[in-house]
Amino acid sequence: MPGSSFGRLFTVTTFGESHGPGVGVVIDGVPPGLSLGAEDIQKELDRRRPGQSAITTPRAEKDRVEILSGTFDGLTTGTTIALLIRNEDKRSSDYDNLRDLYRPGHADWTYRAKFGLRDWRGSGRASGRETAARVAAGAVARRFLSARGITLLGYSREIAGVRAARVVPEEIERNPARCPDPDAAPKMIELIEKAKAEQDSVGGIVEVVADGCPPGLGDPVFDKLEALLGHAILSVGAVRGVEVGAGFEATRMRGSVYNDEPYMDGPRMRTRTNHAGGIAGGISNGMQVVVRAAMRPPASIARPQKTVAVSGESVTVEIAGRHDPCIVPRAVPVIEAMTALVLADCLLVQDAYHGAAGGRAGDVAH
Amino acid sequence: MPGSSFGRLFTVTTFGESHGPGVGVVIDGVPPGLSLGAEDIQKELDRRRPGQSAITTPRAEKDRVEILSGTFDGLTTGTTIALLIRNEDKRSSDYDNLRDLYRPGHADWTYRAKFGLRDWRGSGRASGRETAARVAAGAVARRFLSARGITLLGYSREIAGVRAARVVPEEIERNPARCPDPDAAPKMIELIEKAKAEQDSVGGIVEVVADGCPPGLGDPVFDKLEALLGHAILSVGAVRGVEVGAGFEATRMRGSVYNDEPYMDGPRMRTRTNHAGGIAGGISNGMQVVVRAAMRPPASIARPQKTVAVSGESVTVEIAGRHDPCIVPRAVPVIEAMTALVLADCLLVQDAYHGAAGGRAGDVAH
Amino acid sequence: MPGSSFGRLFTVTTFGESHGPGVGVVIDGVPPGLSLGAEDIQKELDRRRPGQSAITTPRAEKDRVEILSGTFDGLTTGTTIALLIRNEDKRSSDYDNLRDLYRPGHADWTYRAKFGLRDWRGSGRASGRETAARVAAGAVARRFLSARGITLLGYSREIAGVRAARVVPEEIERNPARCPDPDAAPKMIELIEKAKAEQDSVGGIVEVVADGCPPGLGDPVFDKLEALLGHAILSVGAVRGVEVGAGFEATRMRGSVYNDEPYMDGPRMRTRTNHAGGIAGGISNGMQVVVRAAMRPPASIARPQKTVAVSGESVTVEIAGRHDPCIVPRAVPVIEAMTALVLADCLLVQDAYHGAAGGRAGDVAH
Amino acid sequence: MPGSSFGRLFTVTTFGESHGPGVGVVIDGVPPGLSLGAEDIQKELDRRRPGQSAITTPRAEKDRVEILSGTFDGLTTGTTIALLIRNEDKRSSDYDNLRDLYRPGHADWTYRAKFGLRDWRGSGRASGRETAARVAAGAVARRFLSARGITLLGYSREIAGVRAARVVPEEIERNPARCPDPDAAPKMIELIEKAKAEQDSVGGIVEVVADGCPPGLGDPVFDKLEALLGHAILSVGAVRGVEVGAGFEATRMRGSVYNDEPYMDGPRMRTRTNHAGGIAGGISNGMQVVVRAAMRPPASIARPQKTVAVSGESVTVEIAGRHDPCIVPRAVPVIEAMTALVLADCLLVQDAYHGAAGGRAGDVAH
Repeated sequence: MPGSSFGRLFTVTTFGESHGPGVGVVIDGVPPGLSLGAEDIQKELDRRRPGQSAITTPRAEKDRVEILSGTFDGLTTGTTIALLIRNEDKRSSDYDNLRDLYRPGHADWTYRAKFGLRDWRGSGRASGRETAARVAAGAVARRFLSARGITLLGYSREIAGVRAARVVPEEIERNPARCPDPDAAPKMIELIEKAKAEQDSVGGIVEVVADGCPPGLGDPVFDKLEALLGHAILSVGAVRGVEVGAGFEATRMRGSVYNDEPYMDGPRMRTRTNHAGGIAGGISNGMQVVVRAAMRPPASIARPQKTVAVSGESVTVEIAGRHDPCIVPRAVPVIEAMTALVLADCLLVQDAYHGAAGGRAGDVAH
Repeated sequence: MPGSSFGRLFTVTTFGESHGPGVGVVIDGVPPGLSLGAEDIQKELDRRRPGQSAITTPRAEKDRVEILSGTFDGLTTGTTIALLIRNEDKRSSDYDNLRDLYRPGHADWTYRAKFGLRDWRGSGRASGRETAARVAAGAVARRFLSARGITLLGYSREIAGVRAARVVPEEIERNPARCPDPDAAPKMIELIEKAKAEQDSVGGIVEVVADGCPPGLGDPVFDKLEALLGHAILSVGAVRGVEVGAGFEATRMRGSVYNDEPYMDGPRMRTRTNHAGGIAGGISNGMQVVVRAAMRPPASIARPQKTVAVSGESVTVEIAGRHDPCIVPRAVPVIEAMTALVLADCLLVQDAYHGAAGGRAGDVAH
Repeated sequence: MPGSSFGRLFTVTTFGESHGPGVGVVIDGVPPGLSLGAEDIQKELDRRRPGQSAITTPRAEKDRVEILSGTFDGLTTGTTIALLIRNEDKRSSDYDNLRDLYRPGHADWTYRAKFGLRDWRGSGRASGRETAARVAAGAVARRFLSARGITLLGYSREIAGVRAARVVPEEIERNPARCPDPDAAPKMIELIEKAKAEQDSVGGIVEVVADGCPPGLGDPVFDKLEALLGHAILSVGAVRGVEVGAGFEATRMRGSVYNDEPYMDGPRMRTRTNHAGGIAGGISNGMQVVVRAAMRPPASIARPQKTVAVSGESVTVEIAGRHDPCIVPRAVPVIEAMTALVLADCLLVQDAYHGAAGGRAGDVAH
Repeated sequence: MPGSSFGRLFTVTTFGESHGPGVGVVIDGVPPGLSLGAEDIQKELDRRRPGQSAITTPRAEKDRVEILSGTFDGLTTGTTIALLIRNEDKRSSDYDNLRDLYRPGHADWTYRAKFGLRDWRGSGRASGRETAARVAAGAVARRFLSARGITLLGYSREIAGVRAARVVPEEIERNPARCPDPDAAPKMIELIEKAKAEQDSVGGIVEVVADGCPPGLGDPVFDKLEALLGHAILSVGAVRGVEVGAGFEATRMRGSVYNDEPYMDGPRMRTRTNHAGGIAGGISNGMQVVVRAAMRPPASIARPQKTVAVSGESVTVEIAGRHDPCIVPRAVPVIEAMTALVLADCLLVQDAYHGAAGGRAGDVAH
């Protein structure tokens, strides 16, 4: 059945559950000749890893990645790359009391309804652990993008209602909230800790900005750049909404305000504002691509909740175990990864156009 | 190149530009034996048609649909359906003054950058007219869905910042704003007319609710139901954001509030609230599926705007012609159509699972 | 459901039945800037058209093609091309006596079994008439290929057991058998006429040779060039086998004979023989790509045949109407078209590789 | 880039090279609730394994499979299955003398041309070792098929020109040639040994018969059952041709002979002959599905061959190492696997049709 693969030319297929032997990903479409070692991937995995700080789950996964195929002498060969991350700190016993009930806000009941059975240890395939495979694939995509001058920057734009008012890039990795605003960061952390103390959880908004995208990424009609980003990002577990550029705010603007005014910056077309988030008609326009993901508060909370048992009885559940009171900081590298996968895919498609059109497409200065 | 097709089993492929001979769609995956006539499709096209009211473009397209294949004796055959809608009221001369410049907020520049050339008459393939093909396909999908007990209701949840506070279904088609709240409707219409008088445009939010979805629609990992909805809906021209259930509002909720409490309603599992928008772990849970699309204000406005000519010079443009001051009301059937396409597709995939699992999947009462 | 689309980047989606309004095709992936008019497509359709000679069906279809989208000022725009061919000479009454039985060798029974109902007029979607859409799409693919120096030559290699011993290109279109060997042509025609007189039919082998293919077409593992050719060509109704290069003959060769000896021809790598049919490891090697399709004798024959009625009774059927005693000559442009579609698709994919690898791939002289 | 995935609903994605850490496969679409253990897969891998007999390569791979995901408590969960087979007996040094030249009949030159670089150890991704992953996936597909009453039988129909005149099923696994005819088996073995002694290789034909296929498998137009089989089987390295039913022999038959006569066998429609190989109009008709693959002689032979060095110079190569003088016997499980993958995929698609049509499709007795 469909579901485990994403991408048209830069294609990723993930596998694995949180309590099986491991998770991993197969990547097709990586151009040949890129230098790539396990350390390039490990670096990104370490940003997603549990146990990074006091405000994330203490589950102690080292998340060591093994490259199973696709490189030779330190270079990509142009053929299929496979990556494997073994699970280590899986305590299935944490889930023993959950096998006979459906946790609120989780996929327990829907997986049971869809498949007629379910792996009740830690959400099975619906586990957030699957995103490790996405981050690993995203690291490979970023290797390709950076060779083409495209870089990504992600951060927590908002947590528990506190919004970062400004973006200081070097601040992001300095605080455990991955907040780019040094004034907002302590407030975010405080609210996360408060929720944790109260056996509760909070949500927020991840923002990713892509710099250096050439005009021409994205395709007409159904494969518009924002549509692919929406697909990619809404496929991450806790995401409930996606917007590009001015997003939902655009709905309250007049057209005369929303329309970004074009001008020539030397040989380059630019716009004075960027309400469009770098995308017009579904195709990148050369400005920064800006996308935001709305992350709901994590479903696993320690306070007692009413729910339904597999038997149909009404029961109360307290979800023990090691959970994140806020997933936003650890989701930053995941949303970056999804953005990277989409851009890498669009870049390959545009390369095909460009080549086929004899260098006409994408070459125009304005 | 990819782009004109959408769907895994219920697959649509659209074609056509606003100023060519016509637009249309090829649909694969329609089950055999459904009664289907041109009138079933026409009914939906009439809701999207220009010239419906004082607050929409007066372009006079009748949008008559012809079924080119896939039915026999009034029934679908299970093979490919093709639909054609000829263009009638195309005044390419309206665009003569636009051929040498890039309109602000339009795809003119990005199409030029991507393809090296462009059809400057009415946005070519990027025209909103392409959505007529989507609505036609959506009508076929809705025929299938309704045979399975699934119905869709769409409306303008918000226009120009005015929000519908309640949903009175029978009110929707009574007012040209397609507003479900009789108190909010006149305010919305007033603001649209004001923007029009001021040669400007306004945006808003379309909401679609699907009733009767069985549990099990949507697939793990990348093809989660919300991911497919996000892809489908963000591929509609003016959409800048998509959210399901509580959406962006969920980011400011605590987990203890966001988590919908499950209970048994006789043999059926239900939840007391529906912040999840009918989707848990990417799979429908049997509650109403709720999705919202953020529509920016239309780019074509009559007031003078600064922009760049193809030559690179700075110029001022006044976009004459027949344009919508607000696209939200006409977008309602389009967003409904995209929702219907996704649900039809997921239903077929689930039928495959269900059949393959010998009726196990999707059959469980709880 | 899948089935009506083919191709990864150069994608075609056909529609239509023999006795509906028409057949057609939607094509995605055509590069921008190619000159393309209806006459370019018509030329190929005329080669497939019924009623060309005494040895083909007299069904009088003019097969006029209309371009519905995708060109502007005589050039392709890079966006979706749609082509429509209206049916004209459909005599559904010819099929009145066939509605209640299953014709031997036809898809009548399998369509009924698959879909639960069927369009009994002229095979519905299984009609050979659908190949007109393929030939139209193939003509567009050939426009792209010829701009890149790739040309195709197809002919009847064998009919009714008579094999063309040599290939004289200019002979092919001179005789109604499309036989490239002036000595074999009259024998082929004689055997076709004999079969026709005896109310029977004969089969044969179509061979297509592609010249000018650069090295690098086709992809590792499942999308090897021969695999895509096999898929494309075996999807044509009457084809029962496909082979490349030495094909089935290779199974009786020793490795020391089969292996083509490489040598340098100036800066170009070539092989002294071409048993590989221009493909090694699934990827074109720069030699001629050679593919053959085994065409069974047409199923529709006038002589009485025993079969089964829809009621289950045993009956005898005589298939009146206008049928081809041998489909091989008219299949030549169809097999050429399928070959062209595959090569165009592989060329686009290779363009993506090439672009992404910064011009490394495909550039090496040896 | 495309290439490593196959299938529409039952989807496999392979990875790995002969001299990297291992090969493997990710499988999507396996229905939930099937019992599946490593031993079910191992059984098929053992049939493909090198070193089985005196007439196969002595490379000593145990080919132990590890299930990385997708099962729980010994049952499939309906989610992604991943399988890993570590490489053990890789002697890269065998290839040291091959790094600077292109072996005749191999993918060395085409990979170099496509990617600009290549993994010269044992063909990299083009290695026949990749088929271990296919066999593993095929074993999973066969688990599903057998639960639905479909079984496969494969054998060497012909080797080095010696044809099996009859099929004695229990004979097949008794002789190392996998020949189903006890009279032909010794002749086949003799010719393989002779070729080996002469530092040469021989080819042959694998035949696979599928029993128990319900009517309705395969889809109209491009996804005809024979087209999918052709794609799948021609993607196996050494295959140069594919045919179904009477295949190339059909080209020399009259229509009156080729057409299989339908009759009712109680409630079941059958045909008196099976020239169609169980497929009419691209859809299974309930008879045995019969497919044949033409395997060329292996390219790796010990006798000296002329070829071209990477430098462009003419050189002579003697390919030492451990190679199969005939790949046909070990290819039997591979062709079975590819057939199984196609049938599993078609069965899922037909389940979707069937479910969507409310049980109409596929239900008709005749």
